[in-house]
Order: sequence, then C-alpha cells, then structure tokens
Amino acid sequence: MMTSTSTSKETAYQQLLQELDSIKQLSRAASVLEYDKMVFMPMNEHSSMARGKQSAALAAVIHEKSIQPKIGELLDEAQTVVTDPEQKRVLELARKEYEKKIRVPTELAARKAQLSSKSYKAWTEARAANDFSLFQEPLRECIATAIEVANCYKKTEDDNRSVYSILLDNYEVGMDPARIDQIFDQIKAALVPLIERVLGPDATAPSQEPLQGTFDIEQQKQLCQTIVKQMGFDDTHGRIDVSVHPFTMSLNPHDVRITSRFRENEWYQGLAATMHEGGHAIYEQNLHPASRPIDEALSMGMHESQSLFWERHIGLSKEFWDYATPIVNEHLGTNHSPEALYGAVNYAKKSFIRVEADELTYPLHVILRFEIERDFIQGQLSVEDIPARWNADFHTLLGLQVPSDEQGCLQDIHWSMLAYGYFPTYLLGAAAAAQLAHYCAKDIPDMKDKIKKGEFLEIKSWLTNKVHQHGKRYPSLDAHFEAELGEPLNPSYYIDYLVNKYTELYQC
Amino acid sequence: MMTSTSTSKETAYQQLLQELDSIKQLSRAASVLEYDKMVFMPMNEHSSMARGKQSAALAAVIHEKSIQPKIGELLDEAQTVVTDPEQKRVLELARKEYEKKIRVPTELAARKAQLSSKSYKAWTEARAANDFSLFQEPLRECIATAIEVANCYKKTEDDNRSVYSILLDNYEVGMDPARIDQIFDQIKAALVPLIERVLGPDATAPSQEPLQGTFDIEQQKQLCQTIVKQMGFDDTHGRIDVSVHPFTMSLNPHDVRITSRFRENEWYQGLAATMHEGGHAIYEQNLHPASRPIDEALSMGMHESQSLFWERHIGLSKEFWDYATPIVNEHLGTNHSPEALYGAVNYAKKSFIRVEADELTYPLHVILRFEIERDFIQGQLSVEDIPARWNADFHTLLGLQVPSDEQGCLQDIHWSMLAYGYFPTYLLGAAAAAQLAHYCAKDIPDMKDKIKKGEFLEIKSWLTNKVHQHGKRYPSLDAHFEAELGEPLNPSYYIDYLVNKYTELYQC
Repeated sequence: MMTSTSTSKETAYQQLLQELDSIKQLSRAASVLEYDKMVFMPMNEHSSMARGKQSAALAAVIHEKSIQPKIGELLDEAQTVVTDPEQKRVLELARKEYEKKIRVPTELAARKAQLSSKSYKAWTEARAANDFSLFQEPLRECIATAIEVANCYKKTEDDNRSVYSILLDNYEVGMDPARIDQIFDQIKAALVPLIERVLGPDATAPSQEPLQGTFDIEQQKQLCQTIVKQMGFDDTHGRIDVSVHPFTMSLNPHDVRITSRFRENEWYQGLAATMHEGGHAIYEQNLHPASRPIDEALSMGMHESQSLFWERHIGLSKEFWDYATPIVNEHLGTNHSPEALYGAVNYAKKSFIRVEADELTYPLHVILRFEIERDFIQGQLSVEDIPARWNADFHTLLGLQVPSDEQGCLQDIHWSMLAYGYFPTYLLGAAAAAQLAHYCAKDIPDMKDKIKKGEFLEIKSWLTNKVHQHGKRYPSLDAHFEAELGEPLNPSYYIDYLVNKYTELYQC
Repeated sequence: MMTSTSTSKETAYQQLLQELDSIKQLSRAASVLEYDKMVFMPMNEHSSMARGKQSAALAAVIHEKSIQPKIGELLDEAQTVVTDPEQKRVLELARKEYEKKIRVPTELAARKAQLSSKSYKAWTEARAANDFSLFQEPLRECIATAIEVANCYKKTEDDNRSVYSILLDNYEVGMDPARIDQIFDQIKAALVPLIERVLGPDATAPSQEPLQGTFDIEQQKQLCQTIVKQMGFDDTHGRIDVSVHPFTMSLNPHDVRITSRFRENEWYQGLAATMHEGGHAIYEQNLHPASRPIDEALSMGMHESQSLFWERHIGLSKEFWDYATPIVNEHLGTNHSPEALYGAVNYAKKSFIRVEADELTYPLHVILRFEIERDFIQGQLSVEDIPARWNADFHTLLGLQVPSDEQGCLQDIHWSMLAYGYFPTYLLGAAAAAQLAHYCAKDIPDMKDKIKKGEFLEIKSWLTNKVHQHGKRYPSLDAHFEAELGEPLNPSYYIDYLVNKYTELYQC
C-alpha cells in the first residue's frame, strides 16, 4: 500500500512538471514572437496589428493553461509527499505563480491589460505636451488598479504585508521596503556629499573626446561582438542583433539573444550596451537547462547585478582598457591610450534623465523614484503633488532645478505600465554587482591581471558558481548572498567603489 | 421571432469566424517559430530540441482547438441560414478542414507524426548508402499509413473517390487523377520527341559561361533584392533573408518573407530562386487580409504557377534580359550582352536529378513520379519493384540509364514524408503559369515592351486580378481558370511555349 501511494504521489510531482513544462514551452514560443517583433518584423502598422493578434491568442492559451484546476490538484497532491528540498522549492514557486494567477478575477486582469495600453498612450501624449496634468487621471487609475491586483495577491486575511511590499515582490522577490530604505539611506548619505565634491567646481573631469568622431557601424558591431564573446557570451547558443532599444531575451539557455544599437558619432554607448546585455545573457545561458520553476533567474535585482558587473566592474576598470584599447583602435582606426579611454568612459555629470546618467549619479535617480512611488502607493502622496515633490527631491539630491516635467516626472515609462516596485531593483542590482566584484577579487587574487589580458573565463565561472547555477533556489537576494558570499546585500562595497574611483579619477 | 432567430444564426457565423481566427493566429505564431528556426536560430542540438518542444506544445494546442465540438456546432448552426455565396464557401472550407481533423483518430495522427520522422531518417540513411532496400520497409509503412489516413477522410460510405484522389486533394484541391493523366499524357507526347530533337547531337546549346566566375555574395544579394522589389514584392511588408533551402513563408499578408541562397561561383541560381520565391510571396501579399478560410492560396499548383510565372515567363524571356543585363553587369562588375545572358539562363540538359532539371526536361521528371506513386498507392506496383520501374521509365522518357538509386528513386524527400499527391502539383503549376502568361500577353498588348523596361506593375496587377484576390473562392484550378480565363487548365500553352522557344534557341 505504502509503495503504491508513494508512487502515485511521485507521479503527481512529475505530472505537475509536465504541465508546467508545456506552459513554459508556450511562453517561450511567445518570446520568439516578441523577439521577432522587436528585431526582424517589417515595421508596418498592419503587421504590428497582426502580430498583436498572434501574441494575444497565444497569451490567452497560456493563461487558460496556467489557471487549470488540475495544476492546483497536482500541487496539493505533490505537496503531501515531496521531501527533497529542491522539489519542495519547485512546488513553492509553482504554487505562488499559480495562486497569483487564480486570485486575480478575469475581469480585473482584462481591465489591467486594457489600462496599460490606454495609460501608455496618455503618458506619451503628456510627455510630448510636457504637461503632467494630462497624465494625472490615467495614473490615478493605474495606481488604483495596481493596488486592486496587489490586494488579490494577499495570501490570507492575516497577510499583513503592505501593498507596496507585495508589488515589490513581483520584481524583487522577498525584499521588504523597510530593508530597501535601510540600504538606500546608506547610499544616499554617502553619495550626496561625494557627488557635490566630485562634480563640484574644483574637480577636473576627464575628456570624453576619444569617444566621439565618425565610426563605421559595421566595425562597431564587430568590435562589440569580439568583446562580448571574449566575456563568455556563447554566440553558438545565442545571437547578437540590432534593435531600437538594447535588450536580452532567452528562448531557452541554448538560445539567448542580445541586441544593441549603434550611433555613427559615438562608439562607446554601443559597447556599454552590448556588455550590459552580455551580462544578462551569460546569466540566462548558465541557468540549469531543465527549465523548472527553480531554473529561472532569481530577481530583477540579481539580473541587473550581472549586467552591471560586466558593464561597470569589468568594462569601466583600468585593467579592462589595457585589454580593450588595442581592439578598439584596430576596429575603429583610432590611436588612443588606455588611460585616455579609461578616463573618457568614466566621465560623470549631473543630469536630469535617468537613462543617460552615469554610475555615480544614477543611484540618486533611483532613490528619488523609489521614495515617490512608495509614498503614492501608500496614499501618502497625491498624484497631483508628484511634480512638485519630484522637483524638490531632485534639488535636494542633486542640487539642480528640474526645468520641465518632460525632463522630470514624465521621463519614464514604468508608472504608465503599472510597474510599481521596479525602479529600486536597478539600484539593488548595482549594489549587488559591487559586492560580487569585491568577493570575486578576493577569490581570484590575480583578477586584475586576468582582466588586463582579457582572460574572463575564470570570472565568468565564478559568477556561474556563486549566482547563475542557483536559479531561484533562495527566497531573496539577501538570502542568496548570505548563503553564497557569507553576508547579505551590503551597499558599502558600492559606496567604497565609487568613493575610491571618483576621488582618484577627478583628483579631488 | 424570425428576426431573433436570424440574429442568433448570424451570430453563429460570426462566432465561427472568431474561433477560426484564433486558431489561425496560433498557426501563424507556429510559422514565426518555424521561420526563426530556418533562418535565425543558432544551430546547436539543444536549441533545436528546445524549439521542437515549443513547436510541439503549440501544435498540440492548435489541434485541440481545431477539433473542439463547438466548431462543429457553430458550423451546423451557421449552415442553416447563411445564403451569401462567399459565406457559404467559407463554411464549406471550414467544414472540410474540421472534418478532416476529427475523422483521424488521435492514435493514428500520433502514429503518422512519429512515422514521418522515423522514415525520414531511414530515407537519409538509405540515400547515403545508395541502397533502396534500407528504405523498403519504412516506405511500405508510410504508404499503408497514408492510405489509412486517406480512408478516414472519406466523407461517407458511398464516397467512391480513389485513395490517390483523396491524397491528391490535400495538395491540389478538386483535381482528379484521370484529369491529370489527360494533361500529363498530352505533355509527355509532345515533350519526349521535342527533347530528343532539341537536346540531340545536332543541336547547338548556348554557353553557360556568363553565369560562372567569382561573385561577391553581398552584391548578389543586392542584385536579387533590386529585381524582386521591381517585380512587385513589397519588402516593407515582408523580408528577404538567406537560408539553406530557399522558401517563402507568410506570417500574414503584411509580413511575407522569402529566403534565397547564394554561391560564390555562380550567380544565376540565386536570382532564379529569389524570383521564384518572389512569385510565391506576391501571391501571399495580395490575398485578402481578412484571413478567413477563403482568403488562402487555392492550391499547391496555383502557388507554383505564380512562382514559375515570374521565374520562367518573365525571368527566362528575351525582354527580361534587356532590362536585367545592365543591373547584373553593374552589381557583378561583368560586361555581358542581353543575348549572351538570355542564352545562358536557358541552357537545357538531360539530367538525373529533378531539382537540377531545367524547364524543358523537368516535366518528365514529374510525370515519372506521378505515375509511380499513383500505381503504388493503388496497389498496382510493389514497393520492391520501384527501382526497376523508375529506371525503365526514366529510360523511356529521357533515354538515359539511371546509374544508381541515389540518383534515381531515392533522390526526393517527399515519399518519406507521406506526401503522396504532391509531385504532380509542380507540373500543373508549370502548365498553369504558361497559360497565365498567354492570357496576360493578350490582355496587356505591350507586355513585352513593359518587361524590357522593367515595368512589372501592370503584370502584377493582372495576376492579382485573375488569381491572387480570389483566394480559395473556386473549388479547383480548372474551375478557377474556367471562370477567370474562360477555359480550364490547358497544357497546350506550355507545350507551345517550349516548342517555340527551344526550336529557336537551339537552332534545330
């Protein structure tokens, strides 16, 4: 009897994996459609509409399959017997996804989807008109709807998590707003005075001139391909393409694609974007190929830590430019010194636009957004007060007067897409990247020499060992770092990195 | 009461269209996956397997949706009221597809799918070993299975169609084997003596030298793009790519993609393939965008008539080379005369391999296959006797001794894929193309002058008017031509075209 029961229970786990796998395959099919749309599809209105219909039909099938009662039954059945910790974690992750889906009524899910496209349109119009008032009503509706969805996600009546905490969990699993406060406050306290000093009137900024000129696009592409392959991106298990906005898409660990974009008059942005996406891609290529729920990237913050590790802690290092300068000179027909390029790529400047900000000022852009969205989600900030709050905070943090909403609170797409809780992951990722760089250098004593020679294999393997291979095994970034590095996320490493680097570089 | 019933019946038709549309969207999603696999996907074993799983998951969903009883109910309901001829045709086509799917038991459908990949493997091995006996057993199983499926398709107990007739209907709707006999016999009777005369010892063949040399691949691509766009292929509603085997794929009429392939030492095959696929693509781009069952291409034969119209009746004409020669010379850095290129591209020669055959000898390759497959499907030819039959027929038709099965009955993939009834569509398409060219020249008296100047717009519009826009409105190629040209398919036009051209060109 025992054996028979046990076999039937084991079968429930296996059956569940099969159900989840068929949903996963369909989701990957949807990703192929998305990649094709962003990179290959002819850009005409009709083909966009047709692709929209294809994706919607597929999304409907995926949703239908994801909320099948059968999955709930298999989860219940499997849960009573599974003892292996890995299998238990698989069940936990699968249940969480399943419950999130079944808890949201179809009407609400449809309303949310419709609202996204309506508010996106309102946002683009408001931004074009530089008039926040046009976005106020849609934004109120977005916030109310996001809160409604978050309330559905509450596990039980005594789930005491705040709404913002639940929203945050969508992007940064297991991370609490109070913990972010603690981390961000430490960063803010260190960075505000550092930036005042480094970017103040007495500092000497390096010249950006070596990055400018006229550069063949094809040569830029080849330069980027050479470097990203050297980093460890396996282009026999992926592709490198061009698109309007750089992004990474994994169709499975053996087909991970990155895109970049290139400009004729500046070559470094293309390389930075390629290395950034390359970091995301290397994470995806080194996840376990079994494709169970546990075999996915941990969180947005952890993902960003991988892209920023390569973009910053490799790509902005002195040693990297010893390796990369000859390759740049060869491809672009230039004759720069490693020192000149190291200075140029590390040029920092206060600016209004987040996506154009450098590693030194970027954290304050994120902190500003985090504090504002946390407050309006918690009902402590009215939508109509956002512009004034934004401009006041910006002045406090960076000492600049925001000239317009277009360059202020209307610049980002996120709030129009109900993506509340997304912004902080950028800075959590940056802090995590610095911490990983610190521990990597401890474990690989000749790391600097290796970077100088372009020998990245051991560094990539170290990241796979500490991060990639674990997928979603841990419940949070803190728990992951605690287990693998010996301490939870610690922003001191990022602060030290910025203080040391910019004090030296800007000679102040 | 009447009004209420009528409304509810009209709704059944609309509901049916919606159901069919969601299946169509998923099928198009499957095509995106297929195109990506053939053109963009990194070529590693794991990514192929992963894509296989994605496609299989999607195919299962499409199948499930296609056999929903709801579709049968909506068909029944709609059929009782619909009076508009176009709507009636939509219902007829939808019912046919639905019944074909529900009539095949799941077990048989699965067995057929498994058999395809098994027999494909056996075929490649037999061909590599040049040993037909290795393919005999799998081929017997393929034939038996295809017959089993065809018997499921029989509408009723008194459906007296032969099995081969039912198989043929999959590729060439409404075409009867006896009608093909009639058409092919006429072609055979004219071509066997013509080929003996034209390719005999007294004839003077033109030189192929102008096609050979060393040619930049990028320049060849640009040459082909220039010409196919001039033909009327709209690359803002499609793409032109490179793949191992040239093909056309429509993702919807506003996103139709063609691929070609290029060799360094010969430039014309790439252009011929591009024009051929361009012809297929122009058909797909000009189908009605509503994407109902009636808005699809009529048949394989009609599709082939479009590719061959452009490849042969435009691309192999004297007038075309007046237009194209300067473009070729400019792109390839050559200095040929239109006369030299016209001769070179029309070089004909007896050969063993179908896919390498020219327009003059190609028909006999098809007739041979048609007669053999018809006979083995009807039980009049045993599988083990295929090689002897093939070689004897080949000698009768082309006067050559087939040196090996690899160059004989093992050369084509079709029979290993259960695609019985496919071969004849190639020649039906060729005959249809010649007939269309004849009527097009009648309706556009200055067609030759237009071709000389590369003015293809009116020709393309004529094809859209006579062929493309009608989709699947007519029950067969014969009926379509009868209605739009005034006579059914008539192979005399193809015969006359070949006799006149090759008598002049080979001076015999």
